Amino acid sequence: MGLAASDLDAPAAAVELIHSYSLVHDDLPAMDDDDLRRGQPTTHRAFDEATAILAGDALQVLAFSLLARDRATGVSPEARLKMIQILADASGTEGMAGGQALDLSAVGRQINLEELEAMHRLKTGALIRASVLLAAACAPSLNAAEWDALDGYSQDIGLAFQIQDDILDVEGNTEDLGKTIGADAARAKPTYPSVLGLSAAKTRARELQRRASDRLLLLGERAKILTWLAAYVVDRRV
Amino acid sequence: MGLAASDLDAPAAAVELIHSYSLVHDDLPAMDDDDLRRGQPTTHRAFDEATAILAGDALQVLAFSLLARDRATGVSPEARLKMIQILADASGTEGMAGGQALDLSAVGRQINLEELEAMHRLKTGALIRASVLLAAACAPSLNAAEWDALDGYSQDIGLAFQIQDDILDVEGNTEDLGKTIGADAARAKPTYPSVLGLSAAKTRARELQRRASDRLLLLGERAKILTWLAAYVVDRRV
Repeated sequence: MGLAASDLDAPAAAVELIHSYSLVHDDLPAMDDDDLRRGQPTTHRAFDEATAILAGDALQVLAFSLLARDRATGVSPEARLKMIQILADASGTEGMAGGQALDLSAVGRQINLEELEAMHRLKTGALIRASVLLAAACAPSLNAAEWDALDGYSQDIGLAFQIQDDILDVEGNTEDLGKTIGADAARAKPTYPSVLGLSAAKTRARELQRRASDRLLLLGERAKILTWLAAYVVDRRV
Repeated sequence: MGLAASDLDAPAAAVELIHSYSLVHDDLPAMDDDDLRRGQPTTHRAFDEATAILAGDALQVLAFSLLARDRATGVSPEARLKMIQILADASGTEGMAGGQALDLSAVGRQINLEELEAMHRLKTGALIRASVLLAAACAPSLNAAEWDALDGYSQDIGLAFQIQDDILDVEGNTEDLGKTIGADAARAKPTYPSVLGLSAAKTRARELQRRASDRLLLLGERAKILTWLAAYVVDRRV
């Protein structure tokens, strides 16, 4: 698509900053109240709660600063504004913040499949979608059909990722995952296996992978790595 | 400067969003732990802590979304990116988040004038500076000397504003201000009157106002409202 790898350094870093911000805030006592993240004390445990709130705030804003400031040669000012829009949507009420609010309101009560998918579409799907669309926004030669294919792909793999996450929480191995298996069930968090059953959840993840890969046919060889990624999302054991 | 009022709607709203976000987060139990804001329950009191954290996160991101999305006719994509940079700087570690961290670390201990000013430059000065520079970024005809004059002006009135705030906490009237007088002293928060003495604090505020106004001479009649604003900042009783 005429992009140099360095053109994608800032978008990739910006997505990582938004991801980091959300982990720091989601771990807070008022939210998921987690003491460990990737085997290390969470920010509010290593420092204090105020520091974790402020660090999260600062990480979020740094993502937008980076995209606004980046001078990658291949990327126009309009494309940078578009990336900021996409990432802002993924982070705010129509994305992760909204998804986390839905998640908190769902703990301990029965929710249906539609509510579960709406929550995951915002909470984890939005940032996976943004990861794909930020790269797409840097590619001026992309036509509308190609954009739509990538957008649909990103939403399919986002949902498949979450279903596989829920499956691994039932079937996975604590050592491989670096987190406690069965944590969702222990917190009475609704999951795909708990709502659909384990077997139907696996079928749904495979269907989404297939649909995502089919959407990429339009893009031919250029999308090879994305086809691989769709398979990885549902094949992974960690 | 060739701007229509509507060209400034989005920048003004973006600054207000960042201000709102910071109030919601600063009021949190882990931060200043305030129950009332402008006579109303604070967000975490009216809802809950998780909601206040998420609402603040979402307000912050909405500011950048707005600037990226705005289609005001007089404002170029480059100017919008510049505004996003300025506002991101004002909000993050080099601005309000950094200032709040310094503020929290200063409660209950003796700090000197230099530390006090560094804290206020970030905590309140940065957003006042951004308010001026966002408008300046929309004015393509502004030359470097005019930009510097506005930048210096904005920093002077930002500091003067904070000094006057501290003076009002000593001399003001609870009813006028809608907040409790003496709150800073009660929390052992360092202030200009406590560090400099009340009389020297007033002199410093006046000096800053005069310097700010002098900087505007370069801009002539166009800066009339800004000269008024510099006087308002130190004359205000609320």
